[in-house]
Amino acid sequence: MASPIASNALKARIRNPALLKKLSRPEDLMHHFPNGAYIGWSGFTGVGYPKKVPSAMADYVESNKLQGQLKYSLFVGASSGAETENRWAQLDMINRRSPHQVGKDISKGINAGRINFFDKHLSMFPTDLVYGFYTKDRENKNLDVTVIEASEILEDGSVILGASIGATPELVQMADKIIIEVNTAIPSFKGLHDITYTDLPPYRTPYQITGVRDRVGTESLAIDPSKIVAIVESDYQDATSENAPADDNSFRIAGHLIEFLEHEVAQGRLPENLLPLQSGIGNVANAIIGGLNESKFKNLNVWTEVIQDTFLDLFDSGKLDYATATSVRFSPEGFRRFYENWDLYAPKTLLRSQAVSNSPEIIRRLGVIGMNTPVEVDIYAHANSTCVNGSRMLNGLGGSADFLRNSKYSIMHTPSTRPSKTDPHGVSCIVPMCTHIDQTEHDLDVIVTEQGLADVRGLSPRERARVIINKCAHPAYQPILTHYYEKAESECLKKGMGHQPHLLFNSFDLHKALQEEGSMLKVKPW
Amino acid sequence: MASPIASNALKARIRNPALLKKLSRPEDLMHHFPNGAYIGWSGFTGVGYPKKVPSAMADYVESNKLQGQLKYSLFVGASSGAETENRWAQLDMINRRSPHQVGKDISKGINAGRINFFDKHLSMFPTDLVYGFYTKDRENKNLDVTVIEASEILEDGSVILGASIGATPELVQMADKIIIEVNTAIPSFKGLHDITYTDLPPYRTPYQITGVRDRVGTESLAIDPSKIVAIVESDYQDATSENAPADDNSFRIAGHLIEFLEHEVAQGRLPENLLPLQSGIGNVANAIIGGLNESKFKNLNVWTEVIQDTFLDLFDSGKLDYATATSVRFSPEGFRRFYENWDLYAPKTLLRSQAVSNSPEIIRRLGVIGMNTPVEVDIYAHANSTCVNGSRMLNGLGGSADFLRNSKYSIMHTPSTRPSKTDPHGVSCIVPMCTHIDQTEHDLDVIVTEQGLADVRGLSPRERARVIINKCAHPAYQPILTHYYEKAESECLKKGMGHQPHLLFNSFDLHKALQEEGSMLKVKPW
Repeated sequence: MASPIASNALKARIRNPALLKKLSRPEDLMHHFPNGAYIGWSGFTGVGYPKKVPSAMADYVESNKLQGQLKYSLFVGASSGAETENRWAQLDMINRRSPHQVGKDISKGINAGRINFFDKHLSMFPTDLVYGFYTKDRENKNLDVTVIEASEILEDGSVILGASIGATPELVQMADKIIIEVNTAIPSFKGLHDITYTDLPPYRTPYQITGVRDRVGTESLAIDPSKIVAIVESDYQDATSENAPADDNSFRIAGHLIEFLEHEVAQGRLPENLLPLQSGIGNVANAIIGGLNESKFKNLNVWTEVIQDTFLDLFDSGKLDYATATSVRFSPEGFRRFYENWDLYAPKTLLRSQAVSNSPEIIRRLGVIGMNTPVEVDIYAHANSTCVNGSRMLNGLGGSADFLRNSKYSIMHTPSTRPSKTDPHGVSCIVPMCTHIDQTEHDLDVIVTEQGLADVRGLSPRERARVIINKCAHPAYQPILTHYYEKAESECLKKGMGHQPHLLFNSFDLHKALQEEGSMLKVKPW
Repeated sequence: MASPIASNALKARIRNPALLKKLSRPEDLMHHFPNGAYIGWSGFTGVGYPKKVPSAMADYVESNKLQGQLKYSLFVGASSGAETENRWAQLDMINRRSPHQVGKDISKGINAGRINFFDKHLSMFPTDLVYGFYTKDRENKNLDVTVIEASEILEDGSVILGASIGATPELVQMADKIIIEVNTAIPSFKGLHDITYTDLPPYRTPYQITGVRDRVGTESLAIDPSKIVAIVESDYQDATSENAPADDNSFRIAGHLIEFLEHEVAQGRLPENLLPLQSGIGNVANAIIGGLNESKFKNLNVWTEVIQDTFLDLFDSGKLDYATATSVRFSPEGFRRFYENWDLYAPKTLLRSQAVSNSPEIIRRLGVIGMNTPVEVDIYAHANSTCVNGSRMLNGLGGSADFLRNSKYSIMHTPSTRPSKTDPHGVSCIVPMCTHIDQTEHDLDVIVTEQGLADVRGLSPRERARVIINKCAHPAYQPILTHYYEKAESECLKKGMGHQPHLLFNSFDLHKALQEEGSMLKVKPW
C-alpha cells in the first residue's frame, strides 16, 4: 500500500510537511474500523463532514456484501451528509447513533429498531461525551477513531476546519486515532472559527462572552500528531440541497412575529435593534428572516446554530451586523455566493463549538430571541419536537431545547394544520395533549401560527388554553378544541383537579381519529 | 395613626436613624394594598418571609368579611409561611400566584380554579419578572408593593435579609413601594448573604463563580429609601415544621445511590470528594444526606436550593466542607442549633439569590450532582414533577428542572410504589407514559427506587425501557410494564414507528385502573 502522491492543491493546504507522510488512500483504511468500533465524525447540519473515508467504507461493505456485519456506533455533532450517514444506514452499518440525524434510511433504521438512537441536547452532547458517559460500558473508554474534514493544516499541525465546528473538538479530544480529510474543493476557512474545548469540573470556567462578536478560543484545532493515523484528500463540496421556499402561511407567521417584536420594542421590553436572533431550519424560519429584511429593524445580530442563505440577504441589505453559529449551511448557490464574497461576509461571521453556540449560559446572558418549529403544540403550551404519535422519531431534539429553555423570548411557530393523506387540514398542529413532550409549559412564551399569535407569558394553564385555541388554532379545529377544553375544565374543577384540565383517557382522541379515519376533524365529541 | 415607639431590640437592629421615622403598625398599612394590587414578598421554602403585614391584612379581611373582595397577585421567590399565604388562600385573597407554593388551601384554590397559578423555573422567575413579562398587561409596569423580612438595617440603609434571599432583590427592584419587617426574634444574618441583582441584556455579564465559596455580590440589599413606605417590627421566628423521618425505602434508595457514586469515582468519572451536591426536600433526600454521613466520602460540597437539618449533621461529622443555597430551612430545633453554633456553621454557609443558586450557567460549570423526587417516571425516563393525573397541581416545578437539565448527574429518586386508598401498592411510580412531563428523556441520567438503580446514560429509548422496568419497577408491576412495553414494541416496530414504542391510546390505562378500581394493579392486559 504505497502512499499516494500529494497533489499541488493538497500541498498548498498542508503546511506541516511531516504530515504529508501520512497521506493515504481512503480505501486503505478499513483496518482502523473493526466491527463494533466507536466512531466520531466532524460535521453539523450536513456541512463540514468527512466524505471520502465514510464513502470508501460504504463501498467496501457494499462490494463485499458485508451488510449488517460491520456495524458501528457513530457520533457526530448533529447531522452529516446524506451520501455518508444515510448510505451507512442503507447498508446497515450503524448500530448506535447520537445526537441528531437527517436521512430517510436512518430514520427508517431507527424506527424499525435496527439503530439505537438517542437524541441529546446539542449543547450537552459534547460534554457528556467528554465525561465518558457514552463509552462507560466499553473496555476502551475512548472513541476508536474520529474522522474530520479540514480546509487547511497549519505549520504547527493544527487544523482549520470547514463549514462547521459542532462537536469536533470533543470528538477529537476523545479519540484514540484521528483521520483528517483535507478538502481542496473548498477554500480555507482560516479566520472563521473560534474553537474551544470542554474542560472537566471542577476546573471549568465561565465563557467570557458578552456579545455575538466575542472570541474566546483559537482559529485552529490543536491535534496530537501521534494520534493522526492518516490524511486523505477530499475533492468535493458539502452536498447540500436547495432551501424550501416560503409559502403563504410562512409569510403570515412571519408577519405576526414581526408585529409582536415591534410591540415589544414599543413597550420598552426590547432594544430597537432587538436582541440576538436564533432561528431554526425550514420555510417558516426562512420567511421570518425574509420578513425582517422587509421590516424597519436594523443593526440586527444573530446568535444561532446554523447560518443559512437568508442571512446573506440580510447582510446584503445592511440590516444584519453580525452572525455567529456552529455551522454555515448554505445551498450550493449560497456557498458560491459566500465563497465569492468571502471578504464581505467572513468578517461578519463567526463559527463556534456547539457547546458554546448552544450554551444555556450564553443564551440566557445575551437574552436571545429563540424561534423553532415543532411537530405539535398543545393547548397548555407543551411542544413535541421529535416523535410523531409519541413513537416515530423524525430527526431528533437538536438544539431546540437549548434555545427554548434559555432564550428571553421562547417562540414556537407552526402552521395551524398540516394535510393528512385524505384531508388538506387533517392534522391539527394544536392538540389537546402532545403525544411526546420535549418543550414544557414552563419554557414557552409565544406560540404563533398563520392564524395569529398567543402570548402566554405569565398566564395560568387555563388562561393559556383559551388564548392558544382562540389565536392559533385553525377555525375548523377551534370548536373541537374548545369543546375538549370546556368539558375537561368542567369535569376537573368538579373533582378539585382543575389546574391543567384534561380528559386524560381521551386526550389523544384527535390522534386516534387521524389514525382510524384519516383526519383529526373526524374526532367524536366528548 | 401615631407611629409606634421603637423597642430597644428594634433600635439595635436599625442602624439608620432616619428609617426609624417610618416605623408603623402593620394594621395601619391596608391603604397600600387596594384590591387587584401586585404584591411581592421575600421568602423561599417557608423561611425569610414577611409575617406581620400579611397576617394583619388577613385579620382585616376576616374581621370585615371581605373574603373575595380584596384579591391580589402574589409573587414570592418560592413558598412562604403557611400562616401567611395559606391563610390568604383560605380567605380568597389570592387571584394570581407564581412561581411555587406550599399549603393545603392554596393548592385547593388552584385546583378549584380560584387562583391563577403558573409555575416557572425558579432560576427564570426573577429574570422574567425584571423583563416585565408578568406585569406586561398592567398600566403600572411594576409591582405595587413588596414586603420583605430583614434581620438588620445597616447605617447606609441597606438591608440584611433573614433565612433566605430567593427573588427578593428582583422583587425589590420591581416595586413602587417597599415595606420592611425587621425581625427581632432572629439573630442578624450579617455575613451569610451574597446578594446579586438581575441586569437586562445586552448588559449582562458572566457569573464569575467557579467554586461553591465564591462571592460575587454584597452582604446587604441596597434599597432606595424613597420607596420605603413603612417599617414594622416582627417578633416571631420562621414557622417551620419538623422534617419527615426517613423510612426503610429511603434508606434503600440512598444505599443504591451511594454505591453508584462510589462506582463513578472508581471509574474515574468523579473526583474522590465527588462534585457539588444538590438535594431536594423530603425523606429520601434526608436519607441520602444521612447515607453520605455513613459513607467514606469526605470534603464534600453542596450547591443547592435549600440547606436543611441533615447538612448540620454532615458539618458536625466533618464530611461537609461548604454549603451554599438560597435559603436555610431548618426545623425549629435545627434553627436553634444553627443560631447557637453560629460561629461554627456560618463560615461554611452562604446564601445567594435564586437566580444564582439555580443558574443553569453555574450548575453546568460546577458539574453538580442533582437529585430530585418526582410524582412519577415513565419507562422512557420522562418525569412528572407537578401535576397528578396530568391535572392536579401539587406545589409546582420549583428548581427541579433548573438542576436536572444542567447537572452532570441528573438523578430522579422515588419509591417504586405508593399506596392508594385500598392497596398498599396501588400506585406505581414507574408508568408507561407520564401524565404530565416536566423533565424529559433528554435530561435524566439515573432513575433509582428502593428496588434498584437504572443508569440510562447513552441508551436508546428501547434500551432504557428494559433497564428501568427491570431495575426500578416494583416486582408486582414488572410483568405489567413488560407486557405493555413488549406489546407496544411489537406493534410500533411493525408500523415503522418503533423509536419510542407506545400503545398511545392505552398509555394511561394504569391511571384509569387506579381511578376506576382503586389500584393500578387492576389494569387489564392489552
